Amino acid sequence: MSAAAVPFDIHAWQQARADEVELALLQHLPTDAPQPLLAAMQYALTGGGKRMRPMLAFAACEAVAKQSSTALRPGMREAVMRAACAVEMIHAYSLVHDDMPCMDDDVLRRGKPTVHVQYGQAQALLAGDALQAQAFVVLTQDTDTDDALPASAQLRCCQLLSVAAGAQGMAGGQAIDLASVGTDLNQSELERMHALKTGALIRAAVAMGAVCAGANAQERTALDVYGQRVGLAFQVVDDVLDVSADTATLGKTAGKDALADKPTFVSLMGLSGAQAYAVDLVHSAKAALQDAGLSDSAALHALADKIVARSH
Amino acid sequence: MSAAAVPFDIHAWQQARADEVELALLQHLPTDAPQPLLAAMQYALTGGGKRMRPMLAFAACEAVAKQSSTALRPGMREAVMRAACAVEMIHAYSLVHDDMPCMDDDVLRRGKPTVHVQYGQAQALLAGDALQAQAFVVLTQDTDTDDALPASAQLRCCQLLSVAAGAQGMAGGQAIDLASVGTDLNQSELERMHALKTGALIRAAVAMGAVCAGANAQERTALDVYGQRVGLAFQVVDDVLDVSADTATLGKTAGKDALADKPTFVSLMGLSGAQAYAVDLVHSAKAALQDAGLSDSAALHALADKIVARSH
Repeated sequence: MSAAAVPFDIHAWQQARADEVELALLQHLPTDAPQPLLAAMQYALTGGGKRMRPMLAFAACEAVAKQSSTALRPGMREAVMRAACAVEMIHAYSLVHDDMPCMDDDVLRRGKPTVHVQYGQAQALLAGDALQAQAFVVLTQDTDTDDALPASAQLRCCQLLSVAAGAQGMAGGQAIDLASVGTDLNQSELERMHALKTGALIRAAVAMGAVCAGANAQERTALDVYGQRVGLAFQVVDDVLDVSADTATLGKTAGKDALADKPTFVSLMGLSGAQAYAVDLVHSAKAALQDAGLSDSAALHALADKIVARSH
Repeated sequence: MSAAAVPFDIHAWQQARADEVELALLQHLPTDAPQPLLAAMQYALTGGGKRMRPMLAFAACEAVAKQSSTALRPGMREAVMRAACAVEMIHAYSLVHDDMPCMDDDVLRRGKPTVHVQYGQAQALLAGDALQAQAFVVLTQDTDTDDALPASAQLRCCQLLSVAAGAQGMAGGQAIDLASVGTDLNQSELERMHALKTGALIRAAVAMGAVCAGANAQERTALDVYGQRVGLAFQVVDDVLDVSADTATLGKTAGKDALADKPTFVSLMGLSGAQAYAVDLVHSAKAALQDAGLSDSAALHALADKIVARSH
């Protein structure tokens, strides 16, 4: 039986990497940091998320390297793990700040008290701030491996992540979101908001994975298209789930967007229109990979499928 | 009359650089960022501070290059300006978050309403977050100059700044500060808190200036000693001014630390003991420069003197 005949097992692929990410995230925190700040940072990083962004970084790196993560040479393997941890730290800090009373005022996240409920608002604010800084500490740490990523590639990762996190990325999208409640955004305005708020970091995760594998220009462009489409599909599905799933399945309050009078893809396109749009986006994300000759991208395909098929 | 006979004019030196920094800070914000986030970031950056950290970066760079900033080659000049802006963005974001109701709850800073009073808490939180990210955007931006700083040196600046900003630096010091109210810190605990809270960023400013000028190991070590001592002296003087200056001169509420039952150098060493300690620290900071052969360091000397002699 040839290797090609074995169906790709995304569950096993994800599980192998998830265990390593959970460990690496904690290892990449500074153990000499003062308490309770360190505890709050650890708590924020171990909420049991899907680790979608790290997975996308690994999948992009492996697709370009045409090797599974365990077969990567040590320098590349370490580099993509750092990129994965850094992007997850940015994501985790954004959740800590988002949950604070002056933002969404959420007391529970994935069934656990939010960081400010557990550690107080001041420590939560600082833990978020420190996690953002730590992402860049992780990307710039001195490395033990002989075949470390060249400084120019490490710098490019810092650039990708900082732009994606800041005013032209995630923070900018959150600012538009704050201002959009009760207003009528059209589809292009809604897409811009989400492209920044959640899309930028997803796109950066894919792009950083590509940089760690030394992708050429054609591969980088194709993976950027993939990252953009998958990031948008993720948000469209989020809007679909907000109206179609119940609170227990979702793990957060269903119907919250409609209650808050927020514009969504469902309010613009209807439920079935939004579902079809998500499928189209994932289809075109895969097509972009194929066009660039990234044929060994089973994990990228499977992750994109999971984003559309998810129930929470 | 020889050049050596002309006394160094720190006021003129600072003024020339301050005007450029004010301009560069705004130029290094992304003009396509959404409003009102961009406005809040601009507001936070234009409060009229002393720009001490940028000045220290310039002075360190010039001392190593043994040239005034205007004579630096374009790549070095651009690099130190970026380092100066990045460190000031980190400082500015920390003030925005510090002033928020869940931290110090200050409504005025340098006579102007604080960012959360002006733009609301949610935008203030995001503006602080976005300013931290922007510091790393600035340090990693593609450059137009032919003689740009090597990627390894740019990466080193990102490393210095992220460590200084995070849990092992500024955010860590703030966390200790939060936990220290009403407790008895001894001198070494108090020094650790300040070394992180304010010292780390001052030290990073000096170190980044040195990296931009391509300092050798001996120069880097000496400048690091200088940065450490001057950073600590700054805090000792802060504590002295808190009890000896009046509120009008200080521009913030005098006697606040004693009221908050916070440990200070004055409570540990007495007023004259603390004053003498600051003078000693500056003396040893200058001696370290001399020992490393950094004899063209008039600006570093003058900035250290100003830190001790300041009235606010």
